[in-house]
Amino acid sequence: MKALRYEDGRLELAETDAPRAGATGEAVVRVTLAGICNTDVEIARGYAGFEGTLGHEFVGVVESAPDGSLVGRRVVGEINAGCGRCELCAAGDARHCPRRTVLGIVGRDGAFAQYLSLPVVNLLVVPDEVEDARAVFAEPLAAACGIMERVEIRRDTRVAVVGDGKLGLLSAQAVRAQTGAAVTLVGKHENKLSIARARGVETVLVEDLPQGRAGAFDVVVEASGAAAGFALAVGLTRPRGVLVLKSTFHGATEIDAARIVVDEISVVGSRCGRFAPALELLARDAVDVASLVTEEFPLTDGLRAMQRATESGVLKVLLKP
Amino acid sequence: MKALRYEDGRLELAETDAPRAGATGEAVVRVTLAGICNTDVEIARGYAGFEGTLGHEFVGVVESAPDGSLVGRRVVGEINAGCGRCELCAAGDARHCPRRTVLGIVGRDGAFAQYLSLPVVNLLVVPDEVEDARAVFAEPLAAACGIMERVEIRRDTRVAVVGDGKLGLLSAQAVRAQTGAAVTLVGKHENKLSIARARGVETVLVEDLPQGRAGAFDVVVEASGAAAGFALAVGLTRPRGVLVLKSTFHGATEIDAARIVVDEISVVGSRCGRFAPALELLARDAVDVASLVTEEFPLTDGLRAMQRATESGVLKVLLKP
Repeated sequence: MKALRYEDGRLELAETDAPRAGATGEAVVRVTLAGICNTDVEIARGYAGFEGTLGHEFVGVVESAPDGSLVGRRVVGEINAGCGRCELCAAGDARHCPRRTVLGIVGRDGAFAQYLSLPVVNLLVVPDEVEDARAVFAEPLAAACGIMERVEIRRDTRVAVVGDGKLGLLSAQAVRAQTGAAVTLVGKHENKLSIARARGVETVLVEDLPQGRAGAFDVVVEASGAAAGFALAVGLTRPRGVLVLKSTFHGATEIDAARIVVDEISVVGSRCGRFAPALELLARDAVDVASLVTEEFPLTDGLRAMQRATESGVLKVLLKP
Repeated sequence: MKALRYEDGRLELAETDAPRAGATGEAVVRVTLAGICNTDVEIARGYAGFEGTLGHEFVGVVESAPDGSLVGRRVVGEINAGCGRCELCAAGDARHCPRRTVLGIVGRDGAFAQYLSLPVVNLLVVPDEVEDARAVFAEPLAAACGIMERVEIRRDTRVAVVGDGKLGLLSAQAVRAQTGAAVTLVGKHENKLSIARARGVETVLVEDLPQGRAGAFDVVVEASGAAAGFALAVGLTRPRGVLVLKSTFHGATEIDAARIVVDEISVVGSRCGRFAPALELLARDAVDVASLVTEEFPLTDGLRAMQRATESGVLKVLLKP
């Protein structure tokens, strides 16, 4: 099968063996649509130490499974596959299993291919009303919903999101839709901000941000991935407020530790979220993901698609195997 | 009266007017003993932007008060004095009032003097069984108890404290005494570690720390104030664990943001704590503070005392007006 792989320091469209269903609880999924994430771009730049087939955002159809039950069903899949034996896996959460593999990120070939394999327990059936072009957002939207796993947000919580890229747009909408809280999205691009504004999010260009908003938010989500965005996020957080760190940065980031201690701020890391809440939001059309799609490429044009994903102003680029 | 003041870029023993009881709810306290904190050393180095009389750790006797009720009583005092009108002050917590003054730190003369003034509401009567030499630790011990205000620690929580200075020794003992949790103190000085060990804290020299302890703690308290200590603290924290940032660092500190996001760690700032739990620990002799005293100087030797406080191996230096 065809697969977009990063190996020996280069990205290429390769011909590889398709995965086969084994006896270890793994299903084989025929990928019908996949999405390019910034993490894929990082991997292709050699920043992440992964070699193999890229991609962890997908929707597909189950080709084969050990118990046969999901065959033919349209699915998305949680990307962390645990060892199944440790304390964390036993508690039903493989996301922090120390021996986990992660689809297209750690020790497991990913979704930019005609087929992938994942444990059956990772798969969730997609509701009929959620077409592929929206279902493919289940993974990043689950990550956005993961914010609510890490911090309590109530209807009267004042929330800001910094960054109007994919992560920021999904985070702002997910917080708004799940909690009913007032959410302010701070970004640099009017055309991107407008996507969230149409779904009830207050938006403001960073250059128009009034001084008076400093320290005005109970919860601030940093989704810009930039040092300046992090500093802005700290500045927006009230004393004893919570700053959710949603973006990974390259290597070390400078933080104003004195500010965090003196104002007793909590900086809370957030990575993957559970898929069920994301599918629920998609099923009731509570978030706009369709407007985030900039372009779709065939998998055979994967190299061009990856290039496109790095260009300024681009949001989601999709790959069709 | 005599006062140890930092002004115009220099520290000096000055002759100033004693505070007088006003009509604004302030009491005048005759200081009987004061303690030098690292923050005082920082201020004297010009790092903190404060000018005036130093000192925020004290015990003393009330000389005068608007309602007369505490006159003659031995007291310690919470160091944050709020505006009394804002939302935070109304909720009974002046520690984050944006217009607060802080004894010897922000806009209010401190305790390295014969007399100081503080709002009556800030004062707590010291139990008779707690002599001055232990009562003077109420403020830093309250800061240590503040950890429990910021993070839930139960009997089965695995806690590590990094740093065997004053803050680390008090934090390790306070967590142990208040919660019954197993506490491991990591430090560089066997003689300092032994103080906490005698009170039921497991201690380990940083060079003897086994690899296997990486990621082994639910809660890690960073009390070293050093970048290497912070990095060690991150390394000891389990996925989804809590790192309590107790030390202020100078300016910016580098953090491994990717680790915090991927392992979903919470970095929680902690500054001042409430005094009542600290007095309770002192009253039942649940923590050893006496062993932390390295030397006592008369206030008139304040400059020499401040110098002594910066020397290697020194823990608490006291000043007697």
